[in-house]
Parts: sequence; C-alpha cells; structure tokens
Amino acid sequence: MADKVLIYSRFPKTMMTRFAEAFELLDTAGKPAHEVFPAEELAGVRAVLTAGGTPLGGAEMDRFPKLGAIVCYGTGYDGVDLKAAAARNIAVGHSPGANAASVADIAMTLMLAATRRILVADQYVRSGDWAASRQSPMMRPQAGMPSRRIGVYGMGEIGRKIAARCAAFESEVGYFSRSRHDLPYQYFPTLEAMADWCSVLMVAVRASAETNHVVNADILKRVGADGFIVNISRGSVIDEAALVAALTDGTIAGAGLDVYAREPHVPDALTALPNVVLSPHIGGHTLDSHVAMQNCVLANLTALFDGKPLPHDVRPEGKTA
Amino acid sequence: MADKVLIYSRFPKTMMTRFAEAFELLDTAGKPAHEVFPAEELAGVRAVLTAGGTPLGGAEMDRFPKLGAIVCYGTGYDGVDLKAAAARNIAVGHSPGANAASVADIAMTLMLAATRRILVADQYVRSGDWAASRQSPMMRPQAGMPSRRIGVYGMGEIGRKIAARCAAFESEVGYFSRSRHDLPYQYFPTLEAMADWCSVLMVAVRASAETNHVVNADILKRVGADGFIVNISRGSVIDEAALVAALTDGTIAGAGLDVYAREPHVPDALTALPNVVLSPHIGGHTLDSHVAMQNCVLANLTALFDGKPLPHDVRPEGKTA
Repeated sequence: MADKVLIYSRFPKTMMTRFAEAFELLDTAGKPAHEVFPAEELAGVRAVLTAGGTPLGGAEMDRFPKLGAIVCYGTGYDGVDLKAAAARNIAVGHSPGANAASVADIAMTLMLAATRRILVADQYVRSGDWAASRQSPMMRPQAGMPSRRIGVYGMGEIGRKIAARCAAFESEVGYFSRSRHDLPYQYFPTLEAMADWCSVLMVAVRASAETNHVVNADILKRVGADGFIVNISRGSVIDEAALVAALTDGTIAGAGLDVYAREPHVPDALTALPNVVLSPHIGGHTLDSHVAMQNCVLANLTALFDGKPLPHDVRPEGKTA
Repeated sequence: MADKVLIYSRFPKTMMTRFAEAFELLDTAGKPAHEVFPAEELAGVRAVLTAGGTPLGGAEMDRFPKLGAIVCYGTGYDGVDLKAAAARNIAVGHSPGANAASVADIAMTLMLAATRRILVADQYVRSGDWAASRQSPMMRPQAGMPSRRIGVYGMGEIGRKIAARCAAFESEVGYFSRSRHDLPYQYFPTLEAMADWCSVLMVAVRASAETNHVVNADILKRVGADGFIVNISRGSVIDEAALVAALTDGTIAGAGLDVYAREPHVPDALTALPNVVLSPHIGGHTLDSHVAMQNCVLANLTALFDGKPLPHDVRPEGKTA
C-alpha cells in the first residue's frame, strides 16, 4: 500500500515538490475532500497535511478510516479539533518554532512600518508631494522606538523573539502570559494592566477558545490614542469590528496586521484606512522558514509511516487536549 | 545687541518655537539670505542655524561679518565648507548622536519593508487580489533575516546601532570602516570585500568628498541579484544613476532609501520601481530625536552667546578640517 497523504488545505504546488518525492499526494486544492476524491480513495489515506487554521473536525476525520496523523504546516493547529483527534487515536503534528524568527520579523516589520508611517512616506515621495514641498499632516514626527513601551501578549517562541528584537531597539519591553518566565522584561499579571502601560500591543499568543476576542474594545481603549496594535497570531484573538472602530475614531493611532478574522477576506472599512499596514498572512513566509517547516512535516510523515511516534507532536507528554 | 540667529535652511515653523523664545530669529524659509534680508540686518547675525546637507561656502559666510558659529540641526555637516569656516574663525556645531537611534530605526524599517516586500503585500491585500486568490510573482517567499548577511558601511554611532539591531534579528553582521573597532562583528578591510560577502548593504557612512559615489556600479554588482541596498546617510554616497540601472535590470533585488542625490527631487525611474521603498529623508524625524537635536542646538547657541566654546563642535581636539 502506498503512503497516501491528503493535502487538505490550499498550498502552492511548488511547496509540495519535496513531499511528492516521498509520498503519494491527493491534492484537494482546498476543496472538500469528498467532492474531489471518491470514498474508496479517501479510505486509503493515512495522513492529512493541513494549514493549522483550517477547520478540521471529527465528522471530516471520519471520512478517513485509516487516518493516523494530521500534520499541520506551521506552528498553529487551532483549526484542528484535538479532542476529536484524540478520541479517534489520530496524532496531531506541527512545526514548532520552525517559523518563529520569520513571524517575529514580520511583527517588527509591521510595527516599524506602522509607527514610522512608511506607506504614507513612500507615497509622499512617489506622488511628487515631497518634491513640491506639499505639507502632509500624516508626515508629522511620531514617537521613536526608544520612547515606546512594547507589550508582548504571549511568551512562546515567537513572543520571545519579538521581545529580544524590541529590546535591541532600546524600547521598554513588558509581557503578559499565563505564567511568569525567567526573562529580563517586566511581567504584567493581566492583559488590562499591560494595555494600560504599553504604547504598542504585540499579539503573539496562541489562538484558542480562551483567547477568542480577548483584545476587545476595552483593551483597545487602554492602549490609547498614541498606541498601536500588531497582530501576527490569529485574527480570532482580536474583535475585528472593535479594532476597525478604534482605528477609525482615533481610539488608537494605528495597526499592523498579518492575520484577520475571515482570511483571505479583509473588511473594506479596514483596507480603506491610511493608518494601518496590512500583509496577507505572510508571517511564516520566508525561504528559511519554509525549509524548516517542510523538514518538520517530512519528519512527522516519515515517523508515521515507520510506525513511530511523531517527533513534532502538538501534545507532548504532560499536556492534554 | 539682540542674539540674532539666521535660519539658513527651510525648517517647519513649529520646530523653531523653542529657539524663538531664546533668540531673535531671521527666517529665510530656505531662500538666499541676501534676497530676504537687507545687508545691515545680516551684519548683525552671530549664528546661522542650518541643515547639515545644505551647501554653505565661504562666499556665503562673508555675508555675515559677525558670524561666530554655524550650527547644524542634526548629525551631518557635509554641506558646510569646514576649511572656509576655520579660515574665518567660525565654529561649526552639530547634534552628534541625538538622532542616531531614530536613523538606525528607519534603516531597519526600510530593510525589513524592502526585503519582506511590505508595500507589495499591503497593496495585495487592499486591492482584493488576496481575497480573489490571484497569484503574484512579487509575493513569492524571500530569504529571512536569519539567513541574511548584513554589511554595515560606516561604524559611527548610527552604524553601531544598526549592527546591534541586525544582530538581534539573528543575521550575520559585518562592517567596513576606515579603522577596525572592538566590536563582535566581522571586519572587512575593503568595501569591495564586504559587498562580495553581504546580501544587504547598509550605507551609514558620513558623507564627505572621499565617500562621494563610492557605492558605484561595481559595488552594486558585487552585492548581487539577491542583494539589497539601504541608504540612510546621504544621497551623494551612491551613484544614483547606477543604482537605478541596477534596480531596473535585476543586478540587485531591491533597495530602501531615505536619502537621494538631489533632494527633494527623486528620479522618475526610481519612483516607478516596485522593488524599492522610498522615504522623504525622515531618518531623524521622530519626536524624541527632535527634542534631543533641539537640546544640542540650544546648548551650542547659548554657549556662543555666552562667549564659551560650543559643547557640540564638529571639530573636537585632535581632529582637523
């Protein structure tokens, strides 16, 4: 029997080249698997490769009676129903840390681009406004990094890399996470307290039911009129309607966003704003991180087909779903 | 006699508020001083406040027979003829280091924005291309910071801050400057050797006759097709025509520029390119650095009118013009 892997999310074909050399791939191109392949084909599937944010529940798992592992491309696995997988004895793997530097870097890029208004600045040059010495209120000087307080929400691998980068910019760095870590940054016991203190709120927390819409109108108000929000985690962590309102009425100064509530759809009210920098969920999208993530996927799939435990399982010993 | 200060370059009026409280300002608004004020008014001028890049030679100095000091707003003083000033016993002051963090931060902003193609990414979201799943060759993944080699040209205060920030991004950092410093980065004895090695060339050298057009077609070719140029120093350091050619024909991958050969004019061939990020010489343009630069200007002017040496002189002991 061939080692059949179903490609559950939409991935670029070029990205699948390395996997296609080792396994037989059934590519749904993001469409429902049962509409693309007959049930007898799906019956042979032993592994599913998915993007962590794509919903994958128990009913869908039941289409693959031989399924041994769901392997997520990237760090996140918030779309996978872990309880349903555990109940069916299906392992869930991911690529822990493989894209952490790449995601931390897009967080820094978005923060710097938003706070230094680089989109407006570039347009000011390209339009000829600078050459014509036209004044622009958007080009007024803003606070620099040494006078900013960066509050990092979530101190996993990505949060740590963001904090280390911000410290090199001579900014004050604080963080909020469930537990205090041995780190040289100010710890806040609540998100509210950190939001009161910081001028940039960096959302780097893992998405879950508990973090859904945690960054709400109250938190945004606390970040304040000089403050910025940067989100490289998941759109679900922020109440997107509240964010759009806060950006529109001046409750906060601006935002840099790589993730959205209903990707790839971004509200028109958001894309119309001049005080935001928007990227299309490209945080983990560098050559280095793709290679590292592919290495994790290959290691997970190889282990499965060799009958061994996944080396990059989302539920290591001690953790429960 | 009032403490008369001639404002030689064009500065925003709001920026001059603090100085106007202490001194009598004659504001040329960037026009030739002798066209705006009568000779007898200029005869009383004891200090000139200028932007370092604005040309100011001996003939101009001779219009101010009582001139005791030329005070530059910012770090640079490349527009001032230091020999002509010395021959006339005119001190030259500046604001050393006051804007170093702000300039280093715009260097990082331009590098990250250019290498992660944030302008293209933002447009991809705003245009609806992402929502429509349209492919874009510009959105292909690029090398991330941990696999980049950053070559810093010039190891003054700004260069050091750029290097420290890049190191926090897990990049390899090297530098070229006239002399080797006690720093944890690889030293290159020539710009050519560093250009061969690096994938991002950060131009942070002080502008002078010796550095004019030092970054030429040969250096750009050495940086190579995957390489980027970032310039936050002065436009004169780069052969701008060679840079536009290299960006257009793929000799290098892209650039982030805050300075240009003939500001505020930027060549149409440059503003038409998708692989550049352009800002209107806003490197030192943050609230923090303006306050710090104003403090230096006030200290220099106060010392002059008190008959004391400038605390922030461009020619401290041991250095000659």
